[in-house]
Amino acid sequence: MTMGEGALAPQHPGHEPGADASAENFGGRLAEHVARRQSQLVLGLDPDPALLWPGALKRQDQAGAGHGPPAVLAAGAGHGPPAVLAARAVAGHCRLVIEAVGGECVAVKPQVACFERLGAPGWEALQEVIQVAGEAGLLVIADAKRGDIDVTARAYAQAFLGETQTSFGTVPGLGADAMTVNPWLGADAITPMLAIARERARGLFVLVRTSNPGAADLQELRLQDDGTVSDAAARLVHRLGSAGSAGSAGSARAAGRLSDVGAVVGATAPQRLERLRELMPRTPMLLPGVGAQGGRIEDLGAAFTIGPAGGLISASRALVEAYRTDGGAPAVAARRVAASLREQAWGLVSP
Amino acid sequence: MTMGEGALAPQHPGHEPGADASAENFGGRLAEHVARRQSQLVLGLDPDPALLWPGALKRQDQAGAGHGPPAVLAAGAGHGPPAVLAARAVAGHCRLVIEAVGGECVAVKPQVACFERLGAPGWEALQEVIQVAGEAGLLVIADAKRGDIDVTARAYAQAFLGETQTSFGTVPGLGADAMTVNPWLGADAITPMLAIARERARGLFVLVRTSNPGAADLQELRLQDDGTVSDAAARLVHRLGSAGSAGSAGSARAAGRLSDVGAVVGATAPQRLERLRELMPRTPMLLPGVGAQGGRIEDLGAAFTIGPAGGLISASRALVEAYRTDGGAPAVAARRVAASLREQAWGLVSP
Repeated sequence: MTMGEGALAPQHPGHEPGADASAENFGGRLAEHVARRQSQLVLGLDPDPALLWPGALKRQDQAGAGHGPPAVLAAGAGHGPPAVLAARAVAGHCRLVIEAVGGECVAVKPQVACFERLGAPGWEALQEVIQVAGEAGLLVIADAKRGDIDVTARAYAQAFLGETQTSFGTVPGLGADAMTVNPWLGADAITPMLAIARERARGLFVLVRTSNPGAADLQELRLQDDGTVSDAAARLVHRLGSAGSAGSAGSARAAGRLSDVGAVVGATAPQRLERLRELMPRTPMLLPGVGAQGGRIEDLGAAFTIGPAGGLISASRALVEAYRTDGGAPAVAARRVAASLREQAWGLVSP
Repeated sequence: MTMGEGALAPQHPGHEPGADASAENFGGRLAEHVARRQSQLVLGLDPDPALLWPGALKRQDQAGAGHGPPAVLAAGAGHGPPAVLAARAVAGHCRLVIEAVGGECVAVKPQVACFERLGAPGWEALQEVIQVAGEAGLLVIADAKRGDIDVTARAYAQAFLGETQTSFGTVPGLGADAMTVNPWLGADAITPMLAIARERARGLFVLVRTSNPGAADLQELRLQDDGTVSDAAARLVHRLGSAGSAGSAGSARAAGRLSDVGAVVGATAPQRLERLRELMPRTPMLLPGVGAQGGRIEDLGAAFTIGPAGGLISASRALVEAYRTDGGAPAVAARRVAASLREQAWGLVSP
């Protein structure tokens, strides 16, 4: 059995995940997606509402006519307070970017902060962007970096991956396929999220070693016992993950038995990659920091030793802002860079 | 010069912080609040939409008539999808709780996850609850536990403490007085938040040592050099914080020169408190975990060695669910517990 498109699409409001989805684990879904789309490229969406692509608001107006977007975004058509207009433009911008480069990608990674700062309309825009990406056949990794004690961790997972029972009925979450998670609070802060994720064949990506210089402050401190703090985080991630025992033989083979708990490992620290791959031999790695932050795809081979879906290359500004340096239409410049990055990454596994 | 109520109120949409607020630092504002209200009690608001106080929805309807709440919450009066109804009930519940125990408290601490899981209407409810708390003279500490690389950290601070410039005008943030922050990504992920906070005399509370058992997994690992990982986080917090050099002599004295970067230190680990106070001699400590998690106020004396505002005692379920064990009306039971906790904590500094 191969998984149908329906099982791969993120859960939308009122749309229960099918039996197909629950029979698989997230690692398997990810591997299948990567193989089918021949891409490990993840489109980072971190829209700055002062630097959107031209025509963003117009694109959203067109979509509004056909698609029936959420109430707040539609109601303000042509006018409304800054938050409503900015959120509509952000949603339109993300549509344009997805339309331009989605075909080169396996997933999108919306940066939740960029929507949150626009308040309730921003949250609606995020919901709409997740839906648009799902309809384009892309996985959605919500870059939320959440982490909290048990009962609150559960609430965050409900918000992004699950749903919430209330006295007034069930409130669906955002329907992302995976979310990024901060490990600072330890295993008991991650397991409640994982329980909700696993029920629906969704996944987590835990921040093991981030791409910023400040990663050195805590993550790279040397431990008395052995290795660094990020090594300890890597062990935690490996221990929490499961490659799933269910699923059909075919999809299990396709999956290369990838875990449903991934790791974020900055592409800016390739010297750490080999060791972290040793500590996490079944973990899909989300590798941010290529381009603007200085990471280079050719240094990331160690991530892919376990298969094509062993690494996901995330790029955002490198695509969206390509036209500012390369010239030409934003969509054309972005597609050119995306195609090149996709090819480079795919070349690491199929030389 | 003493600070007027206007300077202490959180920033509401369209309401620029006054010159008074920028002349002070958050540590000073906190100390002044604690002294005036004679309380270190922080009301944790983590509403479960399946376990709200009776009359929550009705309270919100009454408020809607008088106060002109946000569009989505008002529009659905009496009907609407589950998210809208649940968000309205959550807002009404928080109103009731603030009315019941606000007088015993110095601040409220809304748990952002609990609002986020209700989508855009939940975000509106959060905005409204922050406004209600500000009108009641309470400081607002948004329990968001955010942390991300520089540009994203900035976006989170815009969402909670600042505002966002867009091509369509300025979008105000939630107007909290402080937010909780995760240190895993290091100093360069905190400083952009701090810059925005400091501009407006707002503050951060960094998770140094959390209250859950999983804190042992990474925070309590022993370092090769000296101490534990949470000790390193404490040093980071001390280094980042500033007690402010501006402000009048009077308010500086009142402040006891508290830093504007606070620390979250679980009340469940009192054996760590003395050492962490040594490492952070000017840091206000937010101490969650009293009650349901097993922490005891009488063990927290070390936090207060630097003054009455050296420690903030956070309580949530212990107050809101008191009526389930004690009987009686929810508000009466909550107020009784709050008064007792306030008195216990105040007794630590004024025996």
